Amino acid sequence: MNNEKIAIIGAGLSGTLLAITMAQRGYDVVVYEKRDDMRKVSMSAGRSINLALSPRGMLGLDLAGIRQEIMGQCIPMPGRMVHPLAQEAFFQSYSGRKGEAINSVSRGGLNISLLNKAETFPNLKMHFNHTCTHVVLEKGVAHFKHEKTGMAIETKADIIIGTDGSGSALRKSMMEKTADLLFNYSQHFLSHGYKELSINPSDKGGFKLEKHALHIWPRGSFMIIALPNLDGSFTVTMFHPYEGEWGFNQLTTRERVEEFFQQFYPELIAFMPDYVDEFFNNPTGNLGTVKCFPWQAYGKALLMGDAAHAIVPFYGQGMNASFEDVRVFNELLDENAGNWEVIFNKFQKSRAENTNAIADLAIDNFYEMRDRVDDADFIMKRKIEMQLEYTYPDYYSKYSLVTFRADVPYARAMAQGRAQDEMLLSWCKGGTPSLNLDEMYTQLMQLANETSYVH
Amino acid sequence: MNNEKIAIIGAGLSGTLLAITMAQRGYDVVVYEKRDDMRKVSMSAGRSINLALSPRGMLGLDLAGIRQEIMGQCIPMPGRMVHPLAQEAFFQSYSGRKGEAINSVSRGGLNISLLNKAETFPNLKMHFNHTCTHVVLEKGVAHFKHEKTGMAIETKADIIIGTDGSGSALRKSMMEKTADLLFNYSQHFLSHGYKELSINPSDKGGFKLEKHALHIWPRGSFMIIALPNLDGSFTVTMFHPYEGEWGFNQLTTRERVEEFFQQFYPELIAFMPDYVDEFFNNPTGNLGTVKCFPWQAYGKALLMGDAAHAIVPFYGQGMNASFEDVRVFNELLDENAGNWEVIFNKFQKSRAENTNAIADLAIDNFYEMRDRVDDADFIMKRKIEMQLEYTYPDYYSKYSLVTFRADVPYARAMAQGRAQDEMLLSWCKGGTPSLNLDEMYTQLMQLANETSYVH
Repeated sequence: MNNEKIAIIGAGLSGTLLAITMAQRGYDVVVYEKRDDMRKVSMSAGRSINLALSPRGMLGLDLAGIRQEIMGQCIPMPGRMVHPLAQEAFFQSYSGRKGEAINSVSRGGLNISLLNKAETFPNLKMHFNHTCTHVVLEKGVAHFKHEKTGMAIETKADIIIGTDGSGSALRKSMMEKTADLLFNYSQHFLSHGYKELSINPSDKGGFKLEKHALHIWPRGSFMIIALPNLDGSFTVTMFHPYEGEWGFNQLTTRERVEEFFQQFYPELIAFMPDYVDEFFNNPTGNLGTVKCFPWQAYGKALLMGDAAHAIVPFYGQGMNASFEDVRVFNELLDENAGNWEVIFNKFQKSRAENTNAIADLAIDNFYEMRDRVDDADFIMKRKIEMQLEYTYPDYYSKYSLVTFRADVPYARAMAQGRAQDEMLLSWCKGGTPSLNLDEMYTQLMQLANETSYVH
Repeated sequence: MNNEKIAIIGAGLSGTLLAITMAQRGYDVVVYEKRDDMRKVSMSAGRSINLALSPRGMLGLDLAGIRQEIMGQCIPMPGRMVHPLAQEAFFQSYSGRKGEAINSVSRGGLNISLLNKAETFPNLKMHFNHTCTHVVLEKGVAHFKHEKTGMAIETKADIIIGTDGSGSALRKSMMEKTADLLFNYSQHFLSHGYKELSINPSDKGGFKLEKHALHIWPRGSFMIIALPNLDGSFTVTMFHPYEGEWGFNQLTTRERVEEFFQQFYPELIAFMPDYVDEFFNNPTGNLGTVKCFPWQAYGKALLMGDAAHAIVPFYGQGMNASFEDVRVFNELLDENAGNWEVIFNKFQKSRAENTNAIADLAIDNFYEMRDRVDDADFIMKRKIEMQLEYTYPDYYSKYSLVTFRADVPYARAMAQGRAQDEMLLSWCKGGTPSLNLDEMYTQLMQLANETSYVH
């Protein structure tokens, strides 16, 4: 047993998973969470967000031994159901291999499973309603305010890890040490925000749309998506510009919202009888990307998960990337136990490179999803990729490299995937490619081998 | 006369120039500066930094009517004196046209001239020792702490402009409104810092090195530069990596510093008898680039100068870019007087594009200065450019477009200049170009016309 004390700020998905793995290693683990215990109090804002779980995330769950439990709460989505305006919907498979799917899972349900698991460790304590106000990085001291009593609390730990999300208090304390840490930082927002709506289950409790799909209504400069929930409902998300003729800023009256939906999403209206109320009751969220470096300070404090790399949701990889952080951190602990300086430096170097890549891929995918999924050459390209993956299971599309190959780092998946896409699209310009499938496979595999990738 | 109140945070170079121009327009102007009045108290840290004044900056000084006064305090530098290791120094002209030079000027002297001018306006008040703590953006209220009394002061203004430098308090208040403003922000640091040293005048009060030049000792991954001062001294700046065999982090003993200078800058030792003391007494500064957007909040507050766009010093354009901000702002006031929303929006759009460009050019120039100025193909390229500018005065190199063409926006100078550089370097690879000067001129002018530049 190791009696070093590890303080973790944030008991969201990655903080709780991290806490479990640190407790397994025998550390003295204390977790501070600003919200109340979600198992006792219903989640704020009533937004039952669901997420897409894929293999990188599952490897994280394996560390906690709860993959099977969580998979039982998932709905597999083997592809996208694309709903063009005034045309029939069609299905785009995510993979040509059998059994590969992403999995719709409730954020709340998953978090609760992790919290329940965490509670089983005698060397893991959890403190809810503790909001981190600042961290004295050099000393390894974190300060909190109790949300109910207003009391100030401080804790000293050997290591403090901030898994406190995109608005991280630990990261803000690093920002205040900019000159000393040479703290590189960026935050960038899309000119689009998002708003959640919902499709209720049918009267008989069934799904009003295909259950096993991620639904997309692409409309060029904006889109709606929907993910299935176990109870037969769908969580619907509008990704929508703030400005412009139909922007959020213009959708200020019931009439205008109805006019907008009738024009752009007419078939959705029947599924969402309360959509106008929901539109005005639900908040509008921002879509930001946060990158920073370094992730560690003075060998005492470390950022992980969204606190280090908040990304937009369009590749369905936010949670998966954060769980991968936890896995890589544990691998580095295996190799360098006790040597925090080495662990922190290797961790931030490897993870920053790869999470920068998934951040960029996620932004690319926004444009692809809202504007390209119903283009003729894009459809042709996806069709060929499905045939390739079906016929030659060792071929992986960019999407598959990112989503289904947990053994391929994101940075490599990006480099190889982009090169493949360029080659495929050049073949698809202006109709059916002149090469046969075998010729395409040979050239793509050669390209994959050649793709320069400097680790 | 206009009785709107304009509060300006920061009485540095751009803040004071801005204040003068606003006072000329009849606004009720109040300037708050955190430091003491530099005319009464000698400047902190004793660092007599000099800067390079070029035409964009001079146009700013014209607004205050002090160009002639300032030019009298300048030393023209028509080119670089390059000092390769163990080889003879050589001169690289900045321009092939006669009379084009950048001008070494003391930051302190220039700031004092501006403060003296500002004091002549009855409708312009200056408050020193006022440190801005935060700004309530929506209300146009700025809060200050008096550095000597500790007293809290607040002021309400119609417009608040932050010219409070790279660590801007106004920008931090905008950062706290990230979600509301969709505030995009980045700060990035070079892995190099800087340290100032000095060459004293000769015993007879003369210059120990060529007076009319910016001196560079390029050493591949680091360099030293020196700019002349009126008193015969030179301000010497080491641009140097933090890490590595010879990094700042390794130069921790007198012996190690002496060993380093003997190996890399042996000819400088004779000029700087106290360099080891200076090395240990003077602080090490960071080299950061700050970009952000928007620059305005709620039509009440606006960022300008380094507060909006801190850049590294390698193009000698920091002050010039900030004075250009003031000029463009005044042009927009002429065209849209009283309509702050239009002025702010046009200002931030135009200036962000152009200051992003000079930020990137300044980083490019770091690599060029430390590593390229003594390369054979680079020397050949500069020689051809000088011949071109001498023979065809309407040809402008990238350096000349940025430095001497105040009528060409930075973004355009970057696009056109980079295209020209690429063409020139392709000709210079492997020795003397096969084209004659006239052919090169024709192709370059055609390129300049074609350079796509989306405004």
